[in-house]
Amino acid sequence: MAQTVISSSSFRQIYIAVIGTGGVGSRFLAQLEYISKQRCEHPSSPKLSLVLVSRSSKILYDEEYNKLPFENIYVRLENSQQKILKLPEIVDYLSAAPSKTILVDNTSSQEVADFYPRFLEKGISIVTPNKKAFSSSIELWKDIFSAASNSGAQVYHESSVGAGLPILSTLNDLIETGDEIIKIEGVFSGTLSFLFNSFAPVNGNGGKWSTEVTNAKNLGYTEPDPRDDLNGLDVARKLTILARLAGLTVESPTSFPVQSLIPKELENVVDGNEFLQKLPKFDAQMEQIKVAAENEGKVVRFVGSISFATKEIKVGLHNFDRSNPIAMLKGSDNIISFYTKRYRDSPLIIQGAGAGGDVTAMGVTGDLIKVIKYLS
Amino acid sequence: MAQTVISSSSFRQIYIAVIGTGGVGSRFLAQLEYISKQRCEHPSSPKLSLVLVSRSSKILYDEEYNKLPFENIYVRLENSQQKILKLPEIVDYLSAAPSKTILVDNTSSQEVADFYPRFLEKGISIVTPNKKAFSSSIELWKDIFSAASNSGAQVYHESSVGAGLPILSTLNDLIETGDEIIKIEGVFSGTLSFLFNSFAPVNGNGGKWSTEVTNAKNLGYTEPDPRDDLNGLDVARKLTILARLAGLTVESPTSFPVQSLIPKELENVVDGNEFLQKLPKFDAQMEQIKVAAENEGKVVRFVGSISFATKEIKVGLHNFDRSNPIAMLKGSDNIISFYTKRYRDSPLIIQGAGAGGDVTAMGVTGDLIKVIKYLS
Repeated sequence: MAQTVISSSSFRQIYIAVIGTGGVGSRFLAQLEYISKQRCEHPSSPKLSLVLVSRSSKILYDEEYNKLPFENIYVRLENSQQKILKLPEIVDYLSAAPSKTILVDNTSSQEVADFYPRFLEKGISIVTPNKKAFSSSIELWKDIFSAASNSGAQVYHESSVGAGLPILSTLNDLIETGDEIIKIEGVFSGTLSFLFNSFAPVNGNGGKWSTEVTNAKNLGYTEPDPRDDLNGLDVARKLTILARLAGLTVESPTSFPVQSLIPKELENVVDGNEFLQKLPKFDAQMEQIKVAAENEGKVVRFVGSISFATKEIKVGLHNFDRSNPIAMLKGSDNIISFYTKRYRDSPLIIQGAGAGGDVTAMGVTGDLIKVIKYLS
Repeated sequence: MAQTVISSSSFRQIYIAVIGTGGVGSRFLAQLEYISKQRCEHPSSPKLSLVLVSRSSKILYDEEYNKLPFENIYVRLENSQQKILKLPEIVDYLSAAPSKTILVDNTSSQEVADFYPRFLEKGISIVTPNKKAFSSSIELWKDIFSAASNSGAQVYHESSVGAGLPILSTLNDLIETGDEIIKIEGVFSGTLSFLFNSFAPVNGNGGKWSTEVTNAKNLGYTEPDPRDDLNGLDVARKLTILARLAGLTVESPTSFPVQSLIPKELENVVDGNEFLQKLPKFDAQMEQIKVAAENEGKVVRFVGSISFATKEIKVGLHNFDRSNPIAMLKGSDNIISFYTKRYRDSPLIIQGAGAGGDVTAMGVTGDLIKVIKYLS
């Protein structure tokens, strides 16, 4: 038997740093408070210490790594007079911590994503819904996973596809156990799901395209500028992540065809409001697409697919039978189908809300719990 | 910083024992060989050593804990002349191993399940699709999890519900991150899914009940005696597991109403063949149920549900609209819907093959990979 001397204070303490306190970040902090309380009731669990919280212009941390209280953390952050730390300084602060450390990045910042390799090479694990880290250049992808592999740090990003739905973990399980992925297809954007479910519902009604886009924006389902949803890039990013996880080398989310729903003439208008004002002029185009589908007895949806035999990735409009689960989707639900060697006759399907602060934060918190378990 | 001295040979070696080499067990051994080869290419992964394989009357193990070869393990097992070990002897053998040990139980044996606490209290982790361990008496459930909690051993049993579908892991993530489960419902039996999809398809055709049961048996979809599927106990066991994981105290799988599809008059006939011969006399009963549903514009399905507010568990026939995903299921697919506080408007749904050696083994292998990661 090996000699094993482990100081409990070292392995039983995990430091957590959280960047970003927006829609996802605020819900995550509430869930973190919940899991921290649950853990107090199980004294054998490792002790979680929140040692840094920051957003763009505010920061709260303790140079001695004493735990920040969970209660009223927003108010405390707002009132903080601490000088903001730059990313290299946050790397230094966390890598000098006296025990294992996890960075939770709840931003969608490319700048933070670009810094992941620097955190990981110092042994700081990362949990995040930030798509940009895993769907930008293939170089960043390689740097992230080689840094993690060298240091033994963990990288978990379930919420980067399908919010809290178990998409990446399922793909991972299929691959790791030796299944062969044949095709992945589905509705990957909560915003575009909502838009098309309203614009072309299976029962045949539905409003004008521009009305539905405006309505979706007013309900908070779109980005501040709806073009950031309509350009298809969000879906392209998610497919890039899935394809790379399944072993395809995808250079970037623009290295395959992506159908944009922004009329060419409106690509360069100044802002989202002007875009919405001018959009009604193009309603006839979308109406034609809807009617063409109806004439085939189908409905049009905005979907993405990856065919592994041909290494083909597609993002855009496609017509579906009314009885197809993709056609029958409701609200802002996502649906993702995995066709594999084992699930060949009928696919493994996962469906549910694909956007929203609470469900996205749930994916982050679920990942955090797994990383804590692996590290302790 | 803590003093940490860990012999790499201790923590980097994991011993695996496998009981059961039937439909699931044989596919599992093939998958185990696959993951073991993958690991050889990553020398930083822990070394996996298969140190015991057994089925009812045969065993293969090495008293010095030298690794058994993966190749031709069946032939080697069949040719083995080693004296079979009783369960207490297997506990002794594995608990004396010089590193961490995982028992993979691919049987559906109550006898083996009853022994889990003895393995777990010795620190031997368990991975299994064996429903009986988690759906028999509540005492066994408590003994299993308190033994695991005391020793730090892991217990994973994803494949005990929905085969390889990520059902238990998803329920676990929902609960651990603080969601509230409102209702779980779905089709939990691959056999009954196949039977009802053939007997009462959404397009209105479908054969006689007894013909479909015989057909399903001939295709290998039922147990050798189809009454073992038709009595509903398999579904009741799966609901017991889900309810308990979500915090309900369920005494046993017969402590709530379970509708049996076995006519009272045929409960005591000698064997499955005689049962099938006499079943046509009762076709009119099932036909009446099918027609009643059709008259409502619906189809009948065999489903289970757990309502958490009322703590009510139900197993039996229910009519569904033709457009309901439960009605539109194909083949032997399972579908499980989680209605929660977060997934309230539309549920989180997981769908796909719910039976079969390869997909069930995949759930076991996926669990094994997680336990290896936690232990190393």
